[in-house]
This record gives sequence, C-alpha cells and structure tokens, in this order.
Amino acid sequence: MSDTLNQKVKDLLPAMIRCRRDLHKYAESGWTEFRTASLVAARLKELGYSLTTGAAAVKKESMMGAPAPNVLKAHQERAVSQGADPALVAGMEGGLTGLWADLPCGGPGPRFALRFDMDANDAVETDAPGHVPNKGGFASINKGVMHACAHDGHVAIGLAVAELLAELKDSLKGSIRLIFQPAEEGVRGAAPMVDAGCVREVDFILGVHMGVKADKKGLLICGARKFLATSKWDVRIQGKSSHAGSDPHMGRNALLAACAAALNLHAISRHGEGPTRITVGKLEAGQGRNVIPPNAFMALETRGATTELNDYMTSEAARIIKAAAEMWGCTYAVSTVGGTKSGESSEAMVDEICSLARAMPAFSDVRGIEDFTGSEDFAHMMTEVQRQGGLGTYIQVGTILKAGHHNDHFDFDEDDLAPAAELLVRVVRHYLGGKK
Amino acid sequence: MSDTLNQKVKDLLPAMIRCRRDLHKYAESGWTEFRTASLVAARLKELGYSLTTGAAAVKKESMMGAPAPNVLKAHQERAVSQGADPALVAGMEGGLTGLWADLPCGGPGPRFALRFDMDANDAVETDAPGHVPNKGGFASINKGVMHACAHDGHVAIGLAVAELLAELKDSLKGSIRLIFQPAEEGVRGAAPMVDAGCVREVDFILGVHMGVKADKKGLLICGARKFLATSKWDVRIQGKSSHAGSDPHMGRNALLAACAAALNLHAISRHGEGPTRITVGKLEAGQGRNVIPPNAFMALETRGATTELNDYMTSEAARIIKAAAEMWGCTYAVSTVGGTKSGESSEAMVDEICSLARAMPAFSDVRGIEDFTGSEDFAHMMTEVQRQGGLGTYIQVGTILKAGHHNDHFDFDEDDLAPAAELLVRVVRHYLGGKK
Amino acid sequence: MSDTLNQKVKDLLPAMIRCRRDLHKYAESGWTEFRTASLVAARLKELGYSLTTGAAAVKKESMMGAPAPNVLKAHQERAVSQGADPALVAGMEGGLTGLWADLPCGGPGPRFALRFDMDANDAVETDAPGHVPNKGGFASINKGVMHACAHDGHVAIGLAVAELLAELKDSLKGSIRLIFQPAEEGVRGAAPMVDAGCVREVDFILGVHMGVKADKKGLLICGARKFLATSKWDVRIQGKSSHAGSDPHMGRNALLAACAAALNLHAISRHGEGPTRITVGKLEAGQGRNVIPPNAFMALETRGATTELNDYMTSEAARIIKAAAEMWGCTYAVSTVGGTKSGESSEAMVDEICSLARAMPAFSDVRGIEDFTGSEDFAHMMTEVQRQGGLGTYIQVGTILKAGHHNDHFDFDEDDLAPAAELLVRVVRHYLGGKK
Amino acid sequence: MSDTLNQKVKDLLPAMIRCRRDLHKYAESGWTEFRTASLVAARLKELGYSLTTGAAAVKKESMMGAPAPNVLKAHQERAVSQGADPALVAGMEGGLTGLWADLPCGGPGPRFALRFDMDANDAVETDAPGHVPNKGGFASINKGVMHACAHDGHVAIGLAVAELLAELKDSLKGSIRLIFQPAEEGVRGAAPMVDAGCVREVDFILGVHMGVKADKKGLLICGARKFLATSKWDVRIQGKSSHAGSDPHMGRNALLAACAAALNLHAISRHGEGPTRITVGKLEAGQGRNVIPPNAFMALETRGATTELNDYMTSEAARIIKAAAEMWGCTYAVSTVGGTKSGESSEAMVDEICSLARAMPAFSDVRGIEDFTGSEDFAHMMTEVQRQGGLGTYIQVGTILKAGHHNDHFDFDEDDLAPAAELLVRVVRHYLGGKK
Repeated sequence: MSDTLNQKVKDLLPAMIRCRRDLHKYAESGWTEFRTASLVAARLKELGYSLTTGAAAVKKESMMGAPAPNVLKAHQERAVSQGADPALVAGMEGGLTGLWADLPCGGPGPRFALRFDMDANDAVETDAPGHVPNKGGFASINKGVMHACAHDGHVAIGLAVAELLAELKDSLKGSIRLIFQPAEEGVRGAAPMVDAGCVREVDFILGVHMGVKADKKGLLICGARKFLATSKWDVRIQGKSSHAGSDPHMGRNALLAACAAALNLHAISRHGEGPTRITVGKLEAGQGRNVIPPNAFMALETRGATTELNDYMTSEAARIIKAAAEMWGCTYAVSTVGGTKSGESSEAMVDEICSLARAMPAFSDVRGIEDFTGSEDFAHMMTEVQRQGGLGTYIQVGTILKAGHHNDHFDFDEDDLAPAAELLVRVVRHYLGGKK
Repeated sequence: MSDTLNQKVKDLLPAMIRCRRDLHKYAESGWTEFRTASLVAARLKELGYSLTTGAAAVKKESMMGAPAPNVLKAHQERAVSQGADPALVAGMEGGLTGLWADLPCGGPGPRFALRFDMDANDAVETDAPGHVPNKGGFASINKGVMHACAHDGHVAIGLAVAELLAELKDSLKGSIRLIFQPAEEGVRGAAPMVDAGCVREVDFILGVHMGVKADKKGLLICGARKFLATSKWDVRIQGKSSHAGSDPHMGRNALLAACAAALNLHAISRHGEGPTRITVGKLEAGQGRNVIPPNAFMALETRGATTELNDYMTSEAARIIKAAAEMWGCTYAVSTVGGTKSGESSEAMVDEICSLARAMPAFSDVRGIEDFTGSEDFAHMMTEVQRQGGLGTYIQVGTILKAGHHNDHFDFDEDDLAPAAELLVRVVRHYLGGKK
Repeated sequence: MSDTLNQKVKDLLPAMIRCRRDLHKYAESGWTEFRTASLVAARLKELGYSLTTGAAAVKKESMMGAPAPNVLKAHQERAVSQGADPALVAGMEGGLTGLWADLPCGGPGPRFALRFDMDANDAVETDAPGHVPNKGGFASINKGVMHACAHDGHVAIGLAVAELLAELKDSLKGSIRLIFQPAEEGVRGAAPMVDAGCVREVDFILGVHMGVKADKKGLLICGARKFLATSKWDVRIQGKSSHAGSDPHMGRNALLAACAAALNLHAISRHGEGPTRITVGKLEAGQGRNVIPPNAFMALETRGATTELNDYMTSEAARIIKAAAEMWGCTYAVSTVGGTKSGESSEAMVDEICSLARAMPAFSDVRGIEDFTGSEDFAHMMTEVQRQGGLGTYIQVGTILKAGHHNDHFDFDEDDLAPAAELLVRVVRHYLGGKK
Repeated sequence: MSDTLNQKVKDLLPAMIRCRRDLHKYAESGWTEFRTASLVAARLKELGYSLTTGAAAVKKESMMGAPAPNVLKAHQERAVSQGADPALVAGMEGGLTGLWADLPCGGPGPRFALRFDMDANDAVETDAPGHVPNKGGFASINKGVMHACAHDGHVAIGLAVAELLAELKDSLKGSIRLIFQPAEEGVRGAAPMVDAGCVREVDFILGVHMGVKADKKGLLICGARKFLATSKWDVRIQGKSSHAGSDPHMGRNALLAACAAALNLHAISRHGEGPTRITVGKLEAGQGRNVIPPNAFMALETRGATTELNDYMTSEAARIIKAAAEMWGCTYAVSTVGGTKSGESSEAMVDEICSLARAMPAFSDVRGIEDFTGSEDFAHMMTEVQRQGGLGTYIQVGTILKAGHHNDHFDFDEDDLAPAAELLVRVVRHYLGGKK
C-alpha cells in the first residue's frame, strides 16, 4: 500500500498545485475567508464528509479581532463575485468562516483530528517579475492581502488528505475530523472553534506547517515546544476635551493616561521563571494641538514562554491600564483581539511520527521536538486535547523558501506539498489501525 | 470733513458687504489665500498704492506651518478657477500670500501702518438654514474652510480704508502702509512678514478685530495687554523597529521616548511670575502591534503671559524633548509651525484713540486697555514697532455675534464694518496731521 | 487717654523686651510650646482672664503634624527643667499647647479676638558675634530651634495688650478673647483650635505680624489678600519585598509607585483661573539594592491662590496618588500634616484700622490691603469669622530686619513692639465702644 | 598516600573547627577583614609561603564599594583590639585586605590557584539559644556582622589545605597559589585582585563553597554555569533648590530626574537572547517639603545571564540615567560599587574532579555542571584564567544547613569541612603530577 499511497499522492500533486494557486490568487485575510471556506466546504461534502459550519463551528462570542459588520458584508460580496457559492457564503455571515468535517471509519476507535489554517496576511505582494506567482499569473488580486505564510498550501494539503482518507476509511477504525480554521494570523481563530467544540472527544490532533527557519528540503521537525502564549489587546481611553489655553483644568487628559500606561506597562517586572514580553506597538491620542486630548488608543501585546507567564503579564497589564486611566480621571475599555496559550507536543506522538517519517525517502533529516519561540494558536487546540487526555503535535515541513514568512517575496516549493500530504495520511492510518 | 467722512463710509458699506460676502464664499485657509491676496493686490494697485509682494513681503525661511508644495500648488489652481488673476497667483507660489501697500502723503512725516489678516479657519460651515451666509447664498464653497473669525470683514474694512485714505493723502504728512497678512490662525504669518521688513521704519501700527467676548454693539476696546506669547511645535522622533517577540532589544522605542517626553513636558514647573501653559495635543506612534515602534509624532504648544514666560516654557520643553529622545536612543526633529510674542498696547496711543472714538456716536462704550488672554500674532508686529521706538495698539470692535469665534455658526453684524472703517481713517488722519 | 495709652505702652516696653528675650532663649517649635504656653497661661490668669486650655482649646483629632508621643513627653520634661509650671505643662500633654483667654467687659457688645502665634522655627541660630541675641546673651539654648519669624515678639505684644485691656475693660462693651496659637509654622495649629471653637461667636478678629518684606520702620500694612491656601501631605506607600534577582515578579514595587505618582503629580494641569503649585519635596523608598522596594514615603505640598484652586490641586493629587499605588499593586495612606485656607481681609475693618493708625505718629506709611502671596493659617481663623458674618484682618508692622524671616540671622528692632501693642489696644477700644 | 591524606585531614579537623569558630566570633564585613587577613597572612608565612599583600595584592583604583576612610580606620583599631598583629594590619590600610601566597613545588610545571573568600555578611546573628554559635559561645561579637555564608569555613579549609600542600610540595611539579579574597558579598573584591595580578600566569583555578540549595550531606557539584553577571551602581543627581511656593521655576528638580530615571530604567526592553534584571532598590531625594529637591540618590543593580546580557543592561541604563538627569537640567555621577562577569566552569576540569571525588567515600552524590543562577565574583577570576588559556571550576559541597545562606540562623555542619579540604588537596596533587 505504501507504494500505492506514494503514487496516489504524486498523481494528486497537480491538483494540489492548482488548488494552492487558486487560493493564492484570491487571498483572504482573517475572518473574511468566505471564498476559501466555501470551496473547502463544497469539496468536503462532495467527498462524503459531514460538515459543521457557521455558528455551530465558531462561537460568535469568542471571536477576536473581527472586522466591522459592513466590512464583512463587503467581503461576502467580494467572495461571491470571485466565484464562491452564494448560499454557502450566506451561512458564514458575520465572519463565521471556520468549519470542520467528520468522517466515520470502518469501526469503533479513536477520533483523529487534523487542523489546517486558511487565512492570508496583510501584505502587498511584490510586483517583482521573478516572483513565481507573478510569472505564473496567480499573484493575489486582492490588494493588500497575500498568502505569505503558506496557508494556501495548507488548505491544498488538507483537501488532498481529505480525498485520500475518504478512500481509506473502510480499512480504518475510529473517525476522522478535518478542521479548517480561519484567522490564525493574530492568533484569533482557534479559541472560538475550541469553544464551539471542534476538539471535543478528539483523541489525537495534528497540525502542519510548510517552511522552517532552517531553510532545507527534506527536513521534518515532528514536534514543537515553547509556543509563546500571547494576548493581543486594543485599549481605548476616554477623557474630556477642553481648551488648552483658557480651561486646561476642565479636561481629562487621555493622552497622559495612555503615556503613563505605556511607560509603566513596559516597566512590569521581569519574571523569575522565564521569558516574557510586552509591547505597546501603537499609540494614537488627541485631536488638536490646543485641545486637552479626550481620546487615546493603544494596540498592545503580551507574551510568555508558558501560559502562566503570559497570564502574569496580562494580570499586571490589566491593573496598570485601569490605574492609568483612573489616574487621569478617564474611563477605558480593553478588547481582546487575539491570543493563544502556550503548548508542547506530546512526546509519545512525536516519536511515532518520527518513525513513520524516517521510512519515507522524501525526508532526509527527521527531528524530534524543537523550540518554536513564536506564537501559533494551534497550541490552543493541542493543549485542550491534552487536557482531555489525548495527544497532539505540530509538524513543520522543510522546503526552500524564497523569502521569510510574512515577507512580500515569500514563496515555497510546491513539490513539497506531496510528502507533507503523504505523511499526514500515513500518520492517521497508523493511529486508526490501518495496515503499516 | 467728519460728516463728509461718515457719509462716505456709509456710501461704501454696500461695497464692503459685497466684498466680505465674496471672501466668505471663497474662504481660504492659512498660506493658501491666493484668491484673497490677488483681489487685494489688484484693488490696491488700482488705488495707486505701490505693492510689495511674494518673496519680498514674506521671508520664506521664516514661514511656519506651511502646507506641502503639492497642496499649495492645488490651491493655486483652485484660486484661479475661482476667479483669481493667474499672473498674480503665480507671483505667490509657495504660499507667499502676504503683501503690503505703501502710499506716500503730501509731505514728510511719520509712517502709519494698518494690519489686516486674511485667512479663514479649518471648520465646516453649518448648513443650518437660518445661518445668514446660507440664507444669503454666500456660505463657503471651499469645504472644511470657513471664515469663522471675521477676517473676511477685516479685509473688507482694509479695502474701504485704502480707498478713503487714497482720497485724503494729499492733506496728510508722512506715509501710509497697509499690511495684509496671511495665516494669523495658528499665529504663523506675522513673523515672516516682520522678517521681510513689513514694519521697518513704521512709527505707528494699528490692528483691528471684529467681535469681542462681551457681545455688545457700540462697544470699543482701544487697547490690549496680556496677549499670550505662544509657540507651536511639531516633534518627530525616529527610532528603530524590530520584532517585539524575538528581538525587542534590537529596537529603539520612539513611542516610549514620546511618552516620556509628554509626561515630563506636562511636569515642567509652574513659574513663580505668571501663568504658563503646555499641551501635547496629539501623539501618534508605532506601526504594528508586534513591532517596536520606530516613529512618533507630537503636536504641542506652549504659552506664557509674557514673552519671557513663554521663552521659559520653550527652553524647558526643548531640553526635555532632546533628553527623552536620547533616553531611548532615538533622534528627533522639532519644527516650529507657529508662534508669537506677547505684547501690550502703547498707552499714549490708546488714550488718543479713545478720545477719537468717543467723538463718534457709533461707539457708546469706549474702553481703554483690557486683558486679551489669547494669542494674536499682531502682537509680534506691534512689539517690533515698539522696540524701534514706535507706538502700536490693537482695537476690538463690539458687534452682535451669532456664535463664538471659531464656531461653525459664527456670524457678525455687517453694519458694524462701517464705524470700524471710519475710526481707522480718523486715527490715521489724526496721526498724519490731518484736520481734526 | 491717647497720650496716657502711649505713655503706658512706653512704660511697658522694657517688660515686653524682657519677655521676648526670655522666649527667644527658650525657643520651642510647633506643638512643643509647653514652657511658652505655661508662662502665657499663668500671666493671663493673674490678669483676671478666664482660660480655655488643653483638649478644650485644641481638638486632638484635628492636630496636624504633631511629633511622636515620646518626643512630646521629652519636651514636657525639658520645659519643666527650663522653668515651666509642672501642673500647667501636665495639662497640655500630647502637645495641646494652644489656649485662649476671655475677658468680659463692662456691658453687652461684640466679641473681639486677637490672635498671637507662639512657635519657633527649625533652624540653628547663628553664632555670629554681632548677632544681637548673642551679644545680649539670649540666643536660643534649644539647639536647632530658633525664633526666626518674630513669634517671640508676638507673644510679648500679646501679654502687654492683655495687661492694657484688663485695665480698660470696664470702659468697654462686649468681650475680649486672646488666642495664643501653637504650630503656625507648617500651618498646623489654627484648624484644631477653630475646630475646638476658638472663633465661635467672634465678631472681629485681628492677627499681627512683625516685619514686612519692604524693610521699613514706620510702615504699616493694615490688610492682606491672596493668602495662599495650602495643604501639606505625608504619603506612605506599602508594597511587598522580594529578591530582585530570583523573584522580582513576587514583589510589589512601592518605589515605582512613588515615582509614577511624583511625575504625574507634577503634571497636574495648570488651572485657567489662577496660580497653583505642587511639589513633592521629599521621596524615600526602598531597603536594599537587590530587594524589590516594599516601602515609599513622600512629603508633598499643594498651594492655590484661592481655597478653590488649592482644593482643585488636592482633589487631583488624591486621585493620582491612589491610582499610582494601585497601579503597582500597593496600598497607601495619606496624612494631612498641615494646611490652611486662603483668605482676604475685610475691607471695612481695614479702612477703620488705617484711620486709627494714621493718627499715631509712629506710623509714617499706612497702607490698605496688599497681596500676601504666602501661607498663614491666621487665614483659616479669619475666613471662619467672616463665614459667621464677622470681620477680620491681618496687619503687618514694618521694622528693620537684620535678615529675612526664617534666616538664621533673623532679628528685628525691639522698639517696634511698642507701637504694635498700642495699635492693637486702640483697635479693640474702638470696636468695643471705648472713647476715641 | 590516600589513606594517609584522609587521616591527616581527620587529624586537622579540630584545628579547622577552632579556626572557623574564632573567625565566626570576630566576623568582619567586606574590606574590613583586617583581623582575618592578618591571621591568614601570619599562618601562611609560618608555613613557608611567600606573600603578596596590601597595594600589591589589591589594586586600589579598582576597589568597589569600600567604606569611608574613617570607618576603615576604626576597623583597623577594632581588629588590633581583637588580637590582630598591628604591623600586618597597618600594611592593609585603606581596606587592602586581600592577599595571595605562593609556594613553588619540586620542579617546573603549571600554576594551580585556589581561591577562598573571607568576608562576613551585614546581618544581626540570632540570639536563639539553640543556635550552635550561641551554644558554643562563638556567636559574632561584632554586632550587625555575621558569617552567614560560610566564608569562615572557607578560610578554615584554606589554611588546612595550605598546611597539607606545604607538606606535599616536593612531590609535586609546578607551583601553588592560595588567594584569600575580601568583599565577595556585593561582588566587589575579585576585580581589584585580578587587576593587581592574582591570576596572572595561572593555569588552573578552583573555588569552593560550603552549602548547596539542595540540602544534602554527601552531595558534591563539581562545576557551575550561568553565574549571573551583575553590576551595582550608586547614582547621585545634583540639581538646584528653590522655594516651591515663590520660585519653583528657579529650581532644578533632582527628584523628578530620579523618578524619570527609575521608571524608564525598569522599562528597558527585555532581551531576546536571555534573562536580564534591573532594580532600583533605593531612592532618596529632597530636603524639605517646600523646597524644589536639589539632590537624589539611587542604588541600583543590573544582572544578565551572560556578561553580554549584563553589558546590554548597563549600556541602556547609562544612557537613560544621563538623559534623565539632563532632562531636568541636573548633573549626575555614577559610581560602580560592585559587579562581576558571568562565567562557566571548564568541562574538562569538571570531569577530572568528578572522577577524583567519586573515589572518596565522603561524596555519595557527585554531579557535573549545574546552573548557578546567582552572582559570585569567583566567576570574574575564572573567566580571566580561561581567557588566558587556562581552566577553572567552582565546586559546591553539600552539607546540612540550619537555615539558608544570608539568614540570621545560618549554620553548617563543621564535619563537612574535612572532605572539602581533602578533595582540594587531591585535585591540586592530581594536576601538579603527584601520585594518584
């Protein structure tokens, strides 16, 4: 069967590439993946999966950093104009673009989940003529949105895997769940899907990413630790304006409140037990030169090497923001626009995957758990599965990158989609008791 | 002659009102008064005055808060399209819209200068149907720019006075200078005209303003003291960006530099000798939530009840801004975008004007020097004349206002233009030795 | 009688000088005036006044800035060892050194109060041989405490006036109250005496001060306005210590709370309606270099040209201090250790006193109300009398000063005690219906 | 010989204990170890070592955190009164209490250095009756100074080792250097001894410490890494006083400069490459409540997991302190009162010592390199030896502690001095070619 599988994947590669290029051309940012999610949903239904979508798949109250309703509305129209099924798009109104697809196998057994992220980045794709999407005519036509983190590839892998597993299902025991997640950028999409139940009763979960810092074909990293827990906050402070010359004492200076907050936030004590971060990345305050500023806005983020360390940072930050606003007689509001927990791959699962991968000629350098030191909200799903008693890991597939992730020249080697898809199928087959 | 003069002014009132309404309709903000200045220049030439315009009238290097070249260019085109003489507008390229007009009289004697300001405010004129400019069809068609400080009236007075003095000139000794100043709002226009020589060898100077806080017809305040000296600064701080998660130590945090500056600027010690002010009215910093902010901008102003008090504030502020930038390893630039000295009317001149005004039935409540407690860059010109040994004052003409200065419902009683013009002519005649 | 009075005062001068020198030698600072107050009490009793002392004269709960109990105890012993009556001193336990003395006159009429302050300054008297107290052998033997504000003279005047009024009482209508106040330095003593009732049902009140900035014999200023309202606060912030190397996150940093408070306090907006001040004069925080500081102390003061302006400052300050403590997870306590209201002499009373003074040859330059621009807690008593419908004023007697008030070389001309005493008697006699 | 050595050490134990108790009783803090150093010097001379002392052993210019001259003088007198040799004490005037002793062996070979620290802690020893030094009558009689870090034991080991090596010297090749260092507490003593040449041409260096966090007899940790580099600074800021009421603008506010410094110092960005620390542990500023504060003092420390990380902190801190002083028009001075580099034991040497220790029955749990995560200025000496091409390590001997290091109940098991001394002799013998 191995050889059969390898051949089947090879046969699917052209379709995977077509899919990836189509998604690349119609790149969609977080919570606006109406076209992408519609295509995914339609295909999975075709393959026999039963779908969970819309409000059942994304808990509306838990959504973070969603665009304004009118912006979402405009994106729905855009998606339809770019070929999406109007009925499917209508079912995702309000940015409910996440979905999962279930497939029961040939008998009782564990539930194995695979997660694929769908959103593109806020970036203007380069117009350099040598950039492959330009040469191939599939550069993003949605100005300012670009797949610069390979999520287009992830979805293409996901749909190929869906097809291959559908063929195999009768030989397996248990069930398969494919999770297509929106808004991974800004770590906003995992939590509302978890809250909606996407990993409930899941025994194993696997996430995959194309491209590693060590830019190398044949490299596979089978597990990750030190995902940074992080929180993304928008802070708004409301004061009162007054004339700076005649009545300065009548104002409530929101600008000074924000400045006091920013300075003191950065002075939050380092933590004795591990790395933390805090950054007020943006601050905008005031209306006119001669008006006591009645308004201020701050975009900030905290991070921690563990969930506990990030919790320390957010708890300190919340106290400081409150006090800074009150110090200047202002009111304030904090909205969480993103965030994820820390996490660490399950060692047992990493070891199994390493063995499976080493048997594949495509992977010449197979490694175990390595430090991630970035944030990925897959950690949120994985941690929840582990909390329930299950196992999970996150694998990174080496490929030659034209430029780093999030760069406007980013591109990866499409041939590497095939071994990634093959490995995922092998792993599922292994865990659901299929032949070795 | 007095009765003659009174009658002449009455005869001129309809023309003054027409002029004022025309300017109101085509309101132009600071440094873009191309149409206004062109009309003024053309009319004064017609009346026999010799003009000083363009770079000879406005020292380019001293201009504060001028719009960008392309914005100015667009305004030149707008002005021409609204009827301005293309040749005159071309001579004001770069926003050099200030000008003065000289008229020698019938023999040797002192030089008497009158100053009129021409610019409108950044405000969207109300569309309330009862607002007189709406009823009369002369509301501003230049969206976002509105004559809400009566400078349209001042120019109308100026042109009427020009006509009356031209008739009188042979009976007078000395010479007359009419100064038409741009960009009084933001106190930006006086200094570059003074630097160009507009008050050189001026013995007497008079400024006039329509409308007083005490909202009363027949009121005339013949002098002012406690003009607030003020400085308007734009501060730009340049740091270095870096990734807030992986390399926070590689950045140079301009946002924190700005916050440290803002807090410490507001903490500048009160001055034992009189009122001061400082306000950072706007602060904008940063690029993205997870990027160490490499840029910051602050719009601030200082004030002082005397020039010395404002100098104290700017000297403290300059030191603090420099230190705050250096504290965070940043560079910075401060640009002065406005400012004026304090000033106080010359008592002797105020007394004379009071006497002249009391002889006019139009003024039922004539007062001497009162506190101004605002900023006006006429103070800059007046102080310079006094420094040279001359005298100066600033008079305020009471009128019924529909709403306060700078309000979008602002309007004044056009009938009050007449006594203002008449008084100015009487004063000049008095000082240049004409009959009483 | 006038000539008689003048002669009587002259006869009393040697006794006044002896009294002043005795008090100067045994100088006592605020709330430790046990010896001074005992001498005063004994003498007033002797003269027939009925006394209110101890807890009846000073409301314990309202005392501000009192020394610790053991310090007060030691001062009681010191006072006795320096000749004070042990029983009287015992009655002032706890620093209750204020007292008032009442004398009913020959019939019904208004109550007239005179206030004298008793405390010395914290200063080490100069050992310069030319300093009169050194030449005369009456320099302070209480090291670090010195009468450098003439309160020794005020008490001497008070006792002479007491003697003279006791002789006159039958010829007057109404009643006399002599208030001897402790702790004027630091503006701490007036409020607890007012709270105990020292000005209850008082119709007229007069305070007196030896020495004016304009250093001139014969000068008398009969009224004052623009007493600065002021508040003196001790702020203590309590955090939690932890090791700065291993557990910095376990601390609650009181030092940073104090720094945030200090910076933001100084940034309280200037007030559009008049001068204000704020100064954190002392800050002490922390225990060791490598310990997160669990403690901080700040000594601060606010001022305002009116009571309202000072209230604005304290209300802003209270909010900022609370927020700064909470910002860093600390608790805090503010104790008021001094303070007084603003005030302004009653014009009618000033005019009367001017007339009375102009009739005395000793005063060659008699002036009405002038700006005080300092703080004096007599303002607290005077304002309370005015609130009840009474009148009050504060007079300053010119004399030649050897050095400014509070300077360690301070000294005044003792001969000027006589006209001051004489004037006070004349004023009381005038208001209580005695012969002119 | 091994058995012989073991027996010899056993025979020496009573003398070691006597020595330790004598030093414990006369505990001396950093730079005042006049008595301790005199005893050491006398004994080493007796044993045939050649000494380097005084200014030759401690570079005066490099001394950090030394007490004032008069304090040192008083300690010299105290030491003599407590039995020190007056001549030896005189040679250490100015706190030059460090010394080293050289012993050439029986032929050419490497130089092996051993370092022992001598100073006690600033702590008041408990008077609990169960505390062994109280029971044994050897608690510190120098109030406020206590051996709470086992340096008394280190010196006792050092003198025993000196005696044993003196006996062995002819059988060894190379030379021995025994370094007795003052002022390890506050990490002040190593740098000036290194600058004086104490490790010049040293091939191997070994430091030893009694007591490990894991409180266990028989435990030996043969190497350490992650010594925290640290810097200890005293910062003084000088401004200008003025009266807070009348002339606040005339002051230069050093208190605000210190507050701005403290807040911004704590806001120094975390470093992406490892842990750092900064703490302003003390701040004292100001003179009086109503005086603009002309003075401020801060005691601060920085730390870093590597020398580079600490260098980052000091370089940021220096810039911020300079800017904060300048921001408020003040001058400032920074003095380094302590500090050390990071460091890491040489693996090869650790391995050898582990082997030697495992052969000793006294050590039941022998471990290699472990994290230290504190600061020790032995790291400074070790790093310098390694820089020259040599090897070094730091060993920690497990013992049962009655309380943690620096606690006022601290005490260790004196029996554990013997195996420590024996191990040191074995290590030197091994490296200098003696029999195994």
